[in-house]
Amino acid sequence: MKPSFSDYSAQIEKYLRDMTYPSGDLESLYGPIAYGMTAGGKRLRPALLMMTADAFGDACEAALRPAAGMEMFHNFTLLHDDVMDDSDTRRGRPTVHARWDVNTAILSGDTMLTLATEMVADVPDAILRPVLNAFNTMALRVYEGQRLDMDFEKSDSVSTDDYIRMVSFKTGALLAASARIGALVGGASETDADKMAEYGMMLGIAFQIQDDWLDVFGDATSFGKPIGGDINNGKKSYLLLKGLSAGTSDSVALAEAMKLPAGPVKVKTVTRIYEKMNLSEICREAVAHYSAKAISALKSTSLSDADREPFRRLVDKLTGRRK
Amino acid sequence: MKPSFSDYSAQIEKYLRDMTYPSGDLESLYGPIAYGMTAGGKRLRPALLMMTADAFGDACEAALRPAAGMEMFHNFTLLHDDVMDDSDTRRGRPTVHARWDVNTAILSGDTMLTLATEMVADVPDAILRPVLNAFNTMALRVYEGQRLDMDFEKSDSVSTDDYIRMVSFKTGALLAASARIGALVGGASETDADKMAEYGMMLGIAFQIQDDWLDVFGDATSFGKPIGGDINNGKKSYLLLKGLSAGTSDSVALAEAMKLPAGPVKVKTVTRIYEKMNLSEICREAVAHYSAKAISALKSTSLSDADREPFRRLVDKLTGRRK
Repeated sequence: MKPSFSDYSAQIEKYLRDMTYPSGDLESLYGPIAYGMTAGGKRLRPALLMMTADAFGDACEAALRPAAGMEMFHNFTLLHDDVMDDSDTRRGRPTVHARWDVNTAILSGDTMLTLATEMVADVPDAILRPVLNAFNTMALRVYEGQRLDMDFEKSDSVSTDDYIRMVSFKTGALLAASARIGALVGGASETDADKMAEYGMMLGIAFQIQDDWLDVFGDATSFGKPIGGDINNGKKSYLLLKGLSAGTSDSVALAEAMKLPAGPVKVKTVTRIYEKMNLSEICREAVAHYSAKAISALKSTSLSDADREPFRRLVDKLTGRRK
Repeated sequence: MKPSFSDYSAQIEKYLRDMTYPSGDLESLYGPIAYGMTAGGKRLRPALLMMTADAFGDACEAALRPAAGMEMFHNFTLLHDDVMDDSDTRRGRPTVHARWDVNTAILSGDTMLTLATEMVADVPDAILRPVLNAFNTMALRVYEGQRLDMDFEKSDSVSTDDYIRMVSFKTGALLAASARIGALVGGASETDADKMAEYGMMLGIAFQIQDDWLDVFGDATSFGKPIGGDINNGKKSYLLLKGLSAGTSDSVALAEAMKLPAGPVKVKTVTRIYEKMNLSEICREAVAHYSAKAISALKSTSLSDADREPFRRLVDKLTGRRK
């Protein structure tokens, strides 16, 4: 039987903890990178890459370094996003710009992007070109998604379609590329690689909508973030956009409630309107919709039922999660 | 006869001006990139890449896109460096973070790094691996150089050896990689590629020391920057480090003068000490020293005398420049 997602996650965790970085007078550049890379987390992207490589070609070992490269890329975006969003904590620790300074976060982040490119490119020559193309195309989508996300904050006319596009760029593209690069490392056909990328994309969208749901209806202890953060920050979440676009009197009330000052009253008021509008259920339906698309893409691959199983479980794990 | 440096520079200038970027709702991401890429300048790095490709293999056309990628990389570093140095103008125009905001400079800069990687990787499969390695290794050196440069500002024990190492990272590495990638695109042998990289490295060091000299002894109109900027900013320039390390009473006077408040009096006082210590001449000797090393590397290549000529002239042009 193939290892489970948690096994791959543990394997990549160990690999990341064993990585060494230049020290001496370059500690000021690489120290913050090591700090960012050892913050823990699910290791979703690299574990997905390894799981895909293993499913198609028992290529788990060969996938380790490119997988670590995808995690490096992900952490680079967190470093820079935390500067842009002015977030001072992540996973219970100070962010890099809070612990060091903004210049360090910028420069060490840049370094992480090049390190990520180097690590992902550590594949056989025969697949270097498609792997590099998948990586670079993904990276551009992620920046575009972050830009759209930032621009949405200042816009009054964001639709749920806009939201899905933004999320497919910002979150979906990275999961899609992880699955695609894993497939390529595992020697999958181009068709299978495309289908696994589709699986990753749909999984990513489902994951993000679920994250929006958790922010309101999740359990504070296991979610690891204070509940209502999106409401207090005025984030254009799936729930908010669905609610605002319903065109009912509740939509008007919701728009008004969003103007309240940040705090528990605002969170409670908005959450009540969400509940009244049945948005928790609508949100869960959207998660189920994109999860089904992920499973459908998975089924269209040449993988055996047994080899599909860990990918099916991953969908359940990510969309049923309480944290 | 082969084209001159200015011809290559003009060709790349046209290519950069004709480049198009995604627009619509992604204008906020790509507009600042187009702005940064059309600011003009010598186009030193891409022109060197093209000149090298042409010298070894008449491969000027094939070199255009990788060359533009090197300029994209250079401009990415300028965008982020300007944020880190808090510089509001460059080449007489507002910098990206001054015209837009810091978040835009960070995110559009990240995008430029990925675009640069994509463009530089647009080479035949046979040389993709060495070209990509040269690019990524160079990028890491440049970040390390910027980090050392930032750390030097806070250190009292920077030697001229430290300075040369920092400059070889921050400026030399990019010229070295431009020459190396040009050589690879032109089909040069590995030995020739190494030697051209050495040429680029030495040229870069000479160029930077010359830049430090121009900052004090240059002509304000043609230099394009106010004279004495390094003195006012307390920059650890080659002149300052040489002066401080002389261990004479002038060194003590120099250290004292550097404590003066920024302004014309400080610039005048420090410049007089530099002149008294003969530092203008010492600086010119260092430029000549690294220029000679560049020429020596050039001579050791398999290029004919005629094909070496534009590279020889480039050394003269850059180290004899008044701007």
